[in-house]
Amino acid sequence: MADKRQIGMIGLGKMGYNLVLNLLDNGHSAVAFDVNENAVKELAEKGANPAFSIKELAEQLTAPRIVWVMVPAGDIVENVLEELSGILETGDIVIEGGNSHYKDSLRRAEKMNARGIHYFDVGTSGGMEGARHGGCFMIGGDKDVFAHIEPVFADISVEKGYLYAGANGSGHFLKMVHNGIEYGMMQAIAEGYEVLEKSQFDYNYEDVSRVWANGSVIRGWLMDLTERAFSKDAKLSGIKGVMQSSGEGKWTVETALELQASAPVIAMSLFMRYRSLEDDTFHGKVVAALRNEFGGHAVVKKED
Amino acid sequence: MADKRQIGMIGLGKMGYNLVLNLLDNGHSAVAFDVNENAVKELAEKGANPAFSIKELAEQLTAPRIVWVMVPAGDIVENVLEELSGILETGDIVIEGGNSHYKDSLRRAEKMNARGIHYFDVGTSGGMEGARHGGCFMIGGDKDVFAHIEPVFADISVEKGYLYAGANGSGHFLKMVHNGIEYGMMQAIAEGYEVLEKSQFDYNYEDVSRVWANGSVIRGWLMDLTERAFSKDAKLSGIKGVMQSSGEGKWTVETALELQASAPVIAMSLFMRYRSLEDDTFHGKVVAALRNEFGGHAVVKKED
Repeated sequence: MADKRQIGMIGLGKMGYNLVLNLLDNGHSAVAFDVNENAVKELAEKGANPAFSIKELAEQLTAPRIVWVMVPAGDIVENVLEELSGILETGDIVIEGGNSHYKDSLRRAEKMNARGIHYFDVGTSGGMEGARHGGCFMIGGDKDVFAHIEPVFADISVEKGYLYAGANGSGHFLKMVHNGIEYGMMQAIAEGYEVLEKSQFDYNYEDVSRVWANGSVIRGWLMDLTERAFSKDAKLSGIKGVMQSSGEGKWTVETALELQASAPVIAMSLFMRYRSLEDDTFHGKVVAALRNEFGGHAVVKKED
Repeated sequence: MADKRQIGMIGLGKMGYNLVLNLLDNGHSAVAFDVNENAVKELAEKGANPAFSIKELAEQLTAPRIVWVMVPAGDIVENVLEELSGILETGDIVIEGGNSHYKDSLRRAEKMNARGIHYFDVGTSGGMEGARHGGCFMIGGDKDVFAHIEPVFADISVEKGYLYAGANGSGHFLKMVHNGIEYGMMQAIAEGYEVLEKSQFDYNYEDVSRVWANGSVIRGWLMDLTERAFSKDAKLSGIKGVMQSSGEGKWTVETALELQASAPVIAMSLFMRYRSLEDDTFHGKVVAALRNEFGGHAVVKKED
């Protein structure tokens, strides 16, 4: 069992919970903690060692301790890392697997590394199914230390599904750009169906997605998911076209601006998401008003 | 062999040639014609019946004859169909598998159908590899007649890789939109690498593509091809970023305009291709000149 490790998992939400099961399946041992005690107890029944505080989790681990933090990005991850940095010791390892901004990861890595704690920023893709049965991991951090945790990633990823990407920050940067690409791909797919829906033809979108998912140039997981969505609701008539976003697309565009990298399609995909959040727009009023001013074109009056 | 058919293939280029081999592998018989006699002779050695004119091809087929036209879109397909319509008879079947505009297919179908010839517009995807070992086919035409040729498509496509899409025109319309989506997806992927290349990190793009191709949300054939491209040329330093296009992206955008369908990402992808064809742009001169006029901002002078 030379290649098996003991992992402390902090955060047992959709991702962390499934990652623990995945680790256990692959012969690693896990100490599991979450503020939700039910999740801890559930995983304890499935073979994890329960912990009811971060301190308790750390105490159960053997040095060099490996702690995987899988909590929502932002304040929560910040607080967890703050607490951890007071508990962990030189030589211990922190894996931060959330969707953190790479600049936060750079800052946190510097702080942790200064205390002798090895920090890895890990972008995770593949959703819950990936976490449970084989995910995709983009890993930034110290290359030599990575060798110690590589067996873990080799076991819990799909084949070829993990990458040591480079120095700290490179893992979360890669995940950010991955998500930016995802925005563009999804918008492109969606626009295609928009054209089909407005056409003279009477397509069955589940069937269309199935043929596009098999043998075509645009085949891939997103097309599989499109097929799945249309299989549940043939015209998606049960949902509104409101496209939320959770930050990584925006960060990709902000980064493109900082780097003066031309990324109009990813930017447009983000703007179309913002547009979808509004029933009406102020820019629409401005254009309508100007057409009226210069050409006397009718405007649609707002109803009381 | 009730489900095996005899197919006359007109056009033995990259696609038609491989389709004939695919048909033969699957127990169908083929009569092969191309203006390039070498291709005809090559396929004759591999089991096809050679024909050295369209008339000769038609004479070798048993009624109801099935003729697959796989020649470049535009004048060539128009001329071949014109000649065919004078040779074929009521009940015969024409499969037009090129990248024709769906409006041309509607017009041609009407003409052929008026003569009692059954016309199918078939969008083909998956490239040469698909044609040879299992492609993706989107088929428009008469549903009842389709039953007669369905065994052929079932054999030469990947599993679930063919779709009877609906009435005439629907096959090529679907292929057009597929290619429009492809433009958007490719531009999104490409912009992601643009951001990586301008970043502070030192990524190996073959490795990045490999991890994105395995387990990530954006995995799919285009990511596999990205990996393949970077495996041959780590920084693509041997090629220029000139992005040609062959029409279907433009048709998708034109169609979106006709239908008043909002497709900004596909349109932007097309415009970025046009931009890539020029070393300098006139719009660039205009903006530079205006910045100079109102703000005295320096312009870059053209060298003699």
